[in-house]
Amino acid sequence: MADIPTDNAALAQASQDLYAAVRRDAPLVQCLTNFVSMNLAANVLLAMGASPAMVHAAEEAPEFARLSGAVVINIGTLSAPWLESMLLTADAACQAGVPWVLDPVAHHATAFRRDAVARLLALRPAIVRGNASEIIALAGGQSAGKGVDARDAVAQAEQSAQTIAIAHRTVVAVTGETDYVTDGRRAVRVTGGSALMPCVTATGCALTALVGAFSAVSRSDPYTAAVAALSCFGIAGLRAGALADGPGSFAWRFLDALAALETDCLTRESPLR
Amino acid sequence: MADIPTDNAALAQASQDLYAAVRRDAPLVQCLTNFVSMNLAANVLLAMGASPAMVHAAEEAPEFARLSGAVVINIGTLSAPWLESMLLTADAACQAGVPWVLDPVAHHATAFRRDAVARLLALRPAIVRGNASEIIALAGGQSAGKGVDARDAVAQAEQSAQTIAIAHRTVVAVTGETDYVTDGRRAVRVTGGSALMPCVTATGCALTALVGAFSAVSRSDPYTAAVAALSCFGIAGLRAGALADGPGSFAWRFLDALAALETDCLTRESPLR
Amino acid sequence: MADIPTDNAALAQASQDLYAAVRRDAPLVQCLTNFVSMNLAANVLLAMGASPAMVHAAEEAPEFARLSGAVVINIGTLSAPWLESMLLTADAACQAGVPWVLDPVAHHATAFRRDAVARLLALRPAIVRGNASEIIALAGGQSAGKGVDARDAVAQAEQSAQTIAIAHRTVVAVTGETDYVTDGRRAVRVTGGSALMPCVTATGCALTALVGAFSAVSRSDPYTAAVAALSCFGIAGLRAGALADGPGSFAWRFLDALAALETDCLTRESPLR
Repeated sequence: MADIPTDNAALAQASQDLYAAVRRDAPLVQCLTNFVSMNLAANVLLAMGASPAMVHAAEEAPEFARLSGAVVINIGTLSAPWLESMLLTADAACQAGVPWVLDPVAHHATAFRRDAVARLLALRPAIVRGNASEIIALAGGQSAGKGVDARDAVAQAEQSAQTIAIAHRTVVAVTGETDYVTDGRRAVRVTGGSALMPCVTATGCALTALVGAFSAVSRSDPYTAAVAALSCFGIAGLRAGALADGPGSFAWRFLDALAALETDCLTRESPLR
Repeated sequence: MADIPTDNAALAQASQDLYAAVRRDAPLVQCLTNFVSMNLAANVLLAMGASPAMVHAAEEAPEFARLSGAVVINIGTLSAPWLESMLLTADAACQAGVPWVLDPVAHHATAFRRDAVARLLALRPAIVRGNASEIIALAGGQSAGKGVDARDAVAQAEQSAQTIAIAHRTVVAVTGETDYVTDGRRAVRVTGGSALMPCVTATGCALTALVGAFSAVSRSDPYTAAVAALSCFGIAGLRAGALADGPGSFAWRFLDALAALETDCLTRESPLR
Repeated sequence: MADIPTDNAALAQASQDLYAAVRRDAPLVQCLTNFVSMNLAANVLLAMGASPAMVHAAEEAPEFARLSGAVVINIGTLSAPWLESMLLTADAACQAGVPWVLDPVAHHATAFRRDAVARLLALRPAIVRGNASEIIALAGGQSAGKGVDARDAVAQAEQSAQTIAIAHRTVVAVTGETDYVTDGRRAVRVTGGSALMPCVTATGCALTALVGAFSAVSRSDPYTAAVAALSCFGIAGLRAGALADGPGSFAWRFLDALAALETDCLTRESPLR
């Protein structure tokens, strides 16, 4: 099993440097994501200073991928034409050295999704982000999930995350009450967030989009990119949760909190454990 | 004409029991709904403790319907591939004994919609939810509606609702300033809500999704399911409306209010008349 | 070059009259717009008293266009079936004398978009609304834009706007920190708004939808329609920006501000320069 490093200080510092790079470079993040999450994902990217582009059609998405800083592919509201475009776009990104991030939403629910995710995984995503149920099922385990919500704890998915990371040479981020990120060799836990987060739709999908923004400014280190994105989400989620009266007020307070993250918050209030 | 029962206390108590069941069972609600409403519908379902899944493609939607607690079909942004999938999914739900709810958005506006709704109605929805203009037109009457907004009063649609309920052996919920629910034999009015509600897009569509959640926990009693969902909406709408400064603040206050509904509010503040 | 008129008072008064007409007539505005913006665009239209309808399929969109007060076409999340429908719908609107508004989102990014916009422009939009990068590229200039965000200043796009207005006999609205509207002969600048606006996704798309609402009540004067819509946006944006703590709170405060605009605000606080 991968070790949880004791030297999280260096990782926090590296995360903070990536956060500064996102603000400075405003990376173009192309999202082929689901209809439910598009608006929130775009707003999360804008709140962090990145530049979202929801370009999905097969006629242009592969061409656009070559201009993008990163590509995010999320199968939440999958259909046959979108899948075709996702495969072409992931391939174009891969060929062009543009990192791409996979969100295998509810892939265990139907044969169509299982097959889609198997084909996408073969196109070498830099990072896979999912909830515990999704990651357990992705490693071939028996998950308790039925729909899009996690019914398993993140801790139960750590071994599965490592299996996937090693088998597919990718970084796996399992998110939930406490997140877990591994590249198969290293691993870290990210705390923070709020109990209100699972009550707001598409927060996980928006996080995947943010992981894309960080991977755009750190193509050679997807592990730190994932950790940095999750850290920002965790800190902003904690702050928004402290002020919110429910899921409705959490959503907008969360965007305000993301936009207001200070330059040094990832080291001063490091959520890494 | 159906009688408005004087014994609303029993209905309020039954509604309250269903509300507890939604919170306890977190029913999986599959929505084939329009692009405008997806996010709000998912957030309304999550705020009430249900589990939304926006699975729509013909390749998987019928398969998923068999696993769902209920299916919601809304033609707001209809297209030919979506209609094909809606027909297959409604049929699969029907075969599997999974209740499904129809929202015939603006079905009177075009030939494409009129035909779609006729075909969907033949697949035996458990509940039909619409505004007054939609329900009047569905019963063959002359509605004043042009687009998606109601231009008729709910009271004008009560007879139409009963006609549809009897002809299609379904429950019909007409929503507006005061809602009306009938199964052709029984009928009740549901008060509450806010004048700001029609100024927020997709509140009606989100209500249809919530009706789905309640029908999932009460397969044998769609009438009470519809009444319970409308009651929750009415009470939360009233509370949010009292605090809101406009449609923007109403939207998030409404989600907060839904999430905060007390266990006994459906009897203590019963909106049934 | 077009003159910036010194007599903005008459234009402000005419704008105010159009605003009263939108509130009074509740024009039906059909939007074929992108998935990211649909919800916000509908909410902006409702906040201003208009009636949105997101009807996009080729089977019904041209038929619906003939009933609409105006049609809005936005290529933000373009695909081949949507493009086909946009072309048919723009043509139907044109034939029926229904004004239609074009939003050429990121048209410079791919060949698919460039071709789509060229074909749409040939169908005689009443108004074109874009950011500076889009308008510069539309006139054949070299824009700094990569994705959907503007990377050029509005002032740099004024000449391009005039070129397009004259060549296509249309009104061009370039929006940004200070907006610019021209019909090739007249021109005016519209101030207001907030630095938070570009941090909220789809505000530009929602503005295009609002331009549609105003063009519906002023078919013979698209220039004033564009100016009036931008003026309302500018004033409401200024007010919301003064109260907001970030992009999350800006979004709902902006909808509240739009809904609360007084009858005489377009003359009392005229943003025209």
